[in-house]
Amino acid sequence: MYNRNIGNLKSIKKKTAITDNLSDLKDADLYIISITDDAIHEFSQKLLLNGKLVVHTSGSIAMNALNGDFNKGVFYPLQTFTKGQKVNFKKVPICIETEVDNDLPKLEEIASSISKNVYIIDSKQREKLHLSAVFVNNFVNHLYHIADGICKENKIPFEILYPLIIETSKKIKKLNPKDAQTGPAIRNDRKTINHQLMQLTNSQKEIYSVLTDSILKTYNN
Amino acid sequence: MYNRNIGNLKSIKKKTAITDNLSDLKDADLYIISITDDAIHEFSQKLLLNGKLVVHTSGSIAMNALNGDFNKGVFYPLQTFTKGQKVNFKKVPICIETEVDNDLPKLEEIASSISKNVYIIDSKQREKLHLSAVFVNNFVNHLYHIADGICKENKIPFEILYPLIIETSKKIKKLNPKDAQTGPAIRNDRKTINHQLMQLTNSQKEIYSVLTDSILKTYNN
Repeated sequence: MYNRNIGNLKSIKKKTAITDNLSDLKDADLYIISITDDAIHEFSQKLLLNGKLVVHTSGSIAMNALNGDFNKGVFYPLQTFTKGQKVNFKKVPICIETEVDNDLPKLEEIASSISKNVYIIDSKQREKLHLSAVFVNNFVNHLYHIADGICKENKIPFEILYPLIIETSKKIKKLNPKDAQTGPAIRNDRKTINHQLMQLTNSQKEIYSVLTDSILKTYNN
Repeated sequence: MYNRNIGNLKSIKKKTAITDNLSDLKDADLYIISITDDAIHEFSQKLLLNGKLVVHTSGSIAMNALNGDFNKGVFYPLQTFTKGQKVNFKKVPICIETEVDNDLPKLEEIASSISKNVYIIDSKQREKLHLSAVFVNNFVNHLYHIADGICKENKIPFEILYPLIIETSKKIKKLNPKDAQTGPAIRNDRKTINHQLMQLTNSQKEIYSVLTDSILKTYNN
């Protein structure tokens, strides 16, 4: 394992060879670059791994951002990680892609040894998947934050909403989201919509309006 | 149990007395009105239950919408229900309110026999809770729908996102939503934001922009 700062590798020292010198990299079947998105392109140029398989782990960076005389690939685990919260890796979807067809079964085998959910996803699809993840993770979490704010303001314990939040997320395994929709917007219940709008701050109002309009459009076309 | 259409009560017939005549209602400690929001006020006027405890089960209707010579109350189970999906009622939060203080322990006892999550919530709080639920259920589900659309368009199985969706909903039990936020907006990563905006339809773009702006504002004040 390589890191420019050898101190960062202390914890792994007993399990594998470590180095802070790229020319000391051991021979391997697979090289995994797991660094910040913006650094992937430049870092990959430093690798002298002719004919070896080199993958990055980013959701939003194309495979071809890797630049070198090696065989390119992507190994993208699609999950959000929280410090202190254990993740069951067997369930984490791993999206793989390889430049060379022959490398695919190799990468698939490794991915399958970690997770039972392995998908072959090309760079264009991975970009769209990452975009979808912004909606179902980043934006959803922000809606939780807004609800948390409304609760705090009214001395309501936010935890009352936990079971609803969990059930909402589980529901789409049984129903597709379009069929799972409920609430005043899909009923076109203007009285409730207007009454709720009145209770919101400007920024909340904007979000409420845009999402309500989008729901109205989705079900009235 | 009363229903204006006695046929609707067939399935309950062996368990309790049924009627379609309000003047035949049996004597009871608690009367529960579980009907559509808009009908609660008018229906309650027909009840001759002087001194009895009468509750409705709505999230968005004030207790005082009940109109009659009885003691008013609310018994609001906060959950989304899906046909064919069993719900563990022990975990469903039940929000209760009573007009008369003496009725509160009575309603609390009944609620506690169904659920271990019973909360005393007044009409104003319940209205805000219901508003919060629109954000964490209705709007969140619509974001799932948008992601589903992006996936379909790009021949990506939506199920790849299930583990992320479930984890996102569980995460807020450990971290408050404000601290759980990730993604390009909180990093103010304009390059990714602009790149993602370019890939969206107009309606998606609007939602993306409004939520991104709101996240930016939340973390840069």
